[in-house]
Amino acid sequence: MNAAPTISDLARALNLSISSVSYALNGHKGVSEATRRRVIEYATRVGYRANSSARALSRARTGSIGIVVRDDYAVIGTEPYYLRFLAGIAAALEGTEVELIVKLTESGLDDELAIYRRWAAERRVDGIILIDENIDDPRAGLAQSLGLPAVLHGTTPPTHPELPGILTDDAFDSATIVEHLALRGARRILHAAGPMRHRHEVRRCEAVAAECAAHGLSYDSICGSYELSHGERAADLVAARSTERPDAIVAANDLIAVAACRRLVQHDIRVPEDCLVVAWDNSVLCEITEPPISALDRHPERCGTKAAQMLLELLRNAEAPVRIEIADPSALVVRRSSAPLGVH
Amino acid sequence: MNAAPTISDLARALNLSISSVSYALNGHKGVSEATRRRVIEYATRVGYRANSSARALSRARTGSIGIVVRDDYAVIGTEPYYLRFLAGIAAALEGTEVELIVKLTESGLDDELAIYRRWAAERRVDGIILIDENIDDPRAGLAQSLGLPAVLHGTTPPTHPELPGILTDDAFDSATIVEHLALRGARRILHAAGPMRHRHEVRRCEAVAAECAAHGLSYDSICGSYELSHGERAADLVAARSTERPDAIVAANDLIAVAACRRLVQHDIRVPEDCLVVAWDNSVLCEITEPPISALDRHPERCGTKAAQMLLELLRNAEAPVRIEIADPSALVVRRSSAPLGVH
Repeated sequence: MNAAPTISDLARALNLSISSVSYALNGHKGVSEATRRRVIEYATRVGYRANSSARALSRARTGSIGIVVRDDYAVIGTEPYYLRFLAGIAAALEGTEVELIVKLTESGLDDELAIYRRWAAERRVDGIILIDENIDDPRAGLAQSLGLPAVLHGTTPPTHPELPGILTDDAFDSATIVEHLALRGARRILHAAGPMRHRHEVRRCEAVAAECAAHGLSYDSICGSYELSHGERAADLVAARSTERPDAIVAANDLIAVAACRRLVQHDIRVPEDCLVVAWDNSVLCEITEPPISALDRHPERCGTKAAQMLLELLRNAEAPVRIEIADPSALVVRRSSAPLGVH
Repeated sequence: MNAAPTISDLARALNLSISSVSYALNGHKGVSEATRRRVIEYATRVGYRANSSARALSRARTGSIGIVVRDDYAVIGTEPYYLRFLAGIAAALEGTEVELIVKLTESGLDDELAIYRRWAAERRVDGIILIDENIDDPRAGLAQSLGLPAVLHGTTPPTHPELPGILTDDAFDSATIVEHLALRGARRILHAAGPMRHRHEVRRCEAVAAECAAHGLSYDSICGSYELSHGERAADLVAARSTERPDAIVAANDLIAVAACRRLVQHDIRVPEDCLVVAWDNSVLCEITEPPISALDRHPERCGTKAAQMLLELLRNAEAPVRIEIADPSALVVRRSSAPLGVH
């Protein structure tokens, strides 16, 4: 018997009906003790395991959780946050038999919602992890109306108190960055922020602006995509200013920061002598570029692990009180791109 | 009715037995035409969809395919090949209702095999995509003995003629790289190869050595992990040679190449004036580092898409002849790290 034996194979081999075999395996009444022992011995010997579809039906569980990563494939392929977050989920699932269904998609929000509806309708997953919280995010409400357990990896303050979540404190992170830049002598901040559909980007704009005001720094921002071209645009903007020129760029990710540094140098603006650069989201890119770029590490692996653990807990006990946790504080990895201004 | 309606909900609402509803929905005999129409109308109105576990049982399909990515999480998180390959699979699945189960794991080969056994035994997936072909790879044979349809993303020549595959022509790629380096004036190649458990690394060592011999170049290799430290070791080796010093490094991936460049400069060996560097696997890292690094783009998205398409075809028609395809030729993206030697 090469392929995995089915319950029909067992029944045929033992000359029993399928329901007798099923009763025997599941401990129901209706078969003799002798038959039960014979079935179990044989099933063990041939390595029979219950079909997961059948078990899913009987216990109303699929043994899978799902996550949708929605972005341009080009961004998904260069954004280490996603893979590190997925690795964190995987770490939480090691040793369990829970599978992770991953949907990478370039489609819009409506299509993402359609995926959750289909997963719920077809009972493909027991629960979902939501990432990249949107402004006025309809996903939490949808998950609830579908009866689909969900955990949100979003940003503080919580907008969905009914949903368990692991939230990043973007106000705290913004304060860390601005305080660092102020100490290093920056007076005028240009914030090259990411797409405003992400709630964390909006939060960071508010928080960086507020921190700048508190430290007496000027604040300007431009929004764009998580791509090299956005960093180049930010550097061009700095170069175009003859007076009150920004002396620090806060970049939404590593690619933007790297591109900004390269373009600044082309404009004869030195990093860090004339302009500091700090990035959200540390990566090997920040480490290997010249000059190396100071960056905030948000520990995506830990967030992924925590989100998966919270979802598994929720699946074990749907009645447990809703827990919303703040992620471990991000760590600013200080490199040469934010060495003190003008002291070189 | 907030949660997705089940067949029990339908039966209750229509005051029918569950089996009557099931018969009506599935077109079996045993219910009147009037009842059938009433059931279907109501089921359509409330958005009932058959439970996927139930459908999986009836058609012996799970609607999922699986992939195991086995490596250190640190490597998985910095290796864009994986995410780009997964994005390619996702592109092939868009518009279908086939889900992708992704298992990221740091465990060994035995644990990977155990995952396939479990997936087959529990009927979690309809088929699998195998990546990172090993020497004496037992996975193809296991998939066959489990009756689990599989497609291999491996390297030429095929070692598993019974298995459909999308194979990279590493001999062709090796020739591309060596020919380029020879034209740029290199005489002595040091190959910083990856772990020898990967069949493609072994193939590349053989092929690069053969191409060097054909072009009259000397060849040396060191094996190591896909990490920065391996590139540093390669550069140290170059620097340690006072005579017959290698004048070109072929790196197994982008990280190794970047680290080699940085360390060479610390040894006062200039890139490309004194030593050329070319990397396997193009990435944004190669693009943004200084000097930018010439690299071979293997089009991982296309390979992922092709592998998924082949698996879907196989699932549609298990009797179709086994197809083994060679991946599109890799493209060498030439950058400054391999500008002609000594002409600067």
